[in-house]
Amino acid sequence: MEKRSFKPGNMLYPLPAVMVTCQGKDKKPNIITVAWAGTVCSDPPMISISVRKERFSHHLLMEGKEFVVNLTNKDLVKATDYCGVTSGRDINKFEKAGLTPMASKVVEVPSIMESPVNIECKVTQVLELGSHDMFLAHVVHVSVDESLMDEKDTLRLKKADLIAYSHGRYYLLGKELGTFGYSIRKKPTKNKGKTKKKRNKKKASA
Amino acid sequence: MEKRSFKPGNMLYPLPAVMVTCQGKDKKPNIITVAWAGTVCSDPPMISISVRKERFSHHLLMEGKEFVVNLTNKDLVKATDYCGVTSGRDINKFEKAGLTPMASKVVEVPSIMESPVNIECKVTQVLELGSHDMFLAHVVHVSVDESLMDEKDTLRLKKADLIAYSHGRYYLLGKELGTFGYSIRKKPTKNKGKTKKKRNKKKASA
Repeated sequence: MEKRSFKPGNMLYPLPAVMVTCQGKDKKPNIITVAWAGTVCSDPPMISISVRKERFSHHLLMEGKEFVVNLTNKDLVKATDYCGVTSGRDINKFEKAGLTPMASKVVEVPSIMESPVNIECKVTQVLELGSHDMFLAHVVHVSVDESLMDEKDTLRLKKADLIAYSHGRYYLLGKELGTFGYSIRKKPTKNKGKTKKKRNKKKASA
Repeated sequence: MEKRSFKPGNMLYPLPAVMVTCQGKDKKPNIITVAWAGTVCSDPPMISISVRKERFSHHLLMEGKEFVVNLTNKDLVKATDYCGVTSGRDINKFEKAGLTPMASKVVEVPSIMESPVNIECKVTQVLELGSHDMFLAHVVHVSVDESLMDEKDTLRLKKADLIAYSHGRYYLLGKELGTFGYSIRKKPTKNKGKTKKKRNKKKASA
């Protein structure tokens, strides 16, 4: 395969595009969409988000030291984009994007009600990396839409219609291609019951 | 919308599932698949990956202080899964997964030829977070498959058929839902009213 050399740049895709809620001392919540976000540790569960110093939300994060990662889906794609390209200096993004602030369970910052999953976080460390500061945080609570639970009371995140961000475009998750560990499973069609559940659990802590 | 409380955990999805190549002092390259990976800074371009201390690749990363993030696609999903659930202590993953080591441009660690994009990285910092250590790294080179360039010599990453990882499952990227900034572009959008209606409907039924 022939390869083309590119100069060093951001080419790790797909990434999540999440709406992050935050607030400063004045307790006025804002929303910023970030794709520079990821899971960085399983135990304790930790997330990092990276935000430019110039962004309005940067000082809110520095002041409040809390945020909520609100996952985004098909119905929220326009709001997601909107909250990434506008500033809370000028507008109330909740109003403008038609989003509803909802009391969080552990942190003071509100969550976004319309989001299928709300991940409440407390900042533990801020690293200055260059254009962006990285906010490392502990996950302190997770809220999930009841509609995502199936008849066996198991979470079916697939039902959330989550979106991914890749090279300037938003995509719906498409065809399922496999489950974690499927490449070494001896008999993929059998052992559907408890064994599979156990495997899924193991995967979740990978 | 009714919400269900979950205990703190890893629920940030979708994430990339990338094959990371690395090697230690003995210069024997290995592959480890990680989903705990993300972009953390634009300038300089930086990536973080998180790896458990127990993993064979951990000491290779500590010794070599270099790695390559090899993006994964539809054709590589089985190899991707395989390299995540097996150990380089026991096997040669390149051979077993049918992958070809290819000389990288800047780092000593080889890239995976079959991967559509190879992101060469040099580790700048290692943070011990708990179950995982986070490797922060500068991107020092990017190689892209020639087949992803269009007739205007522009990169079309969509053609790579990248995959995402979400809650234990691998998905192909599906329908394109919008481009970055589309929500505030002046052109009259035909589905403006539609989106609002949908959201209102959802609220009403909550």
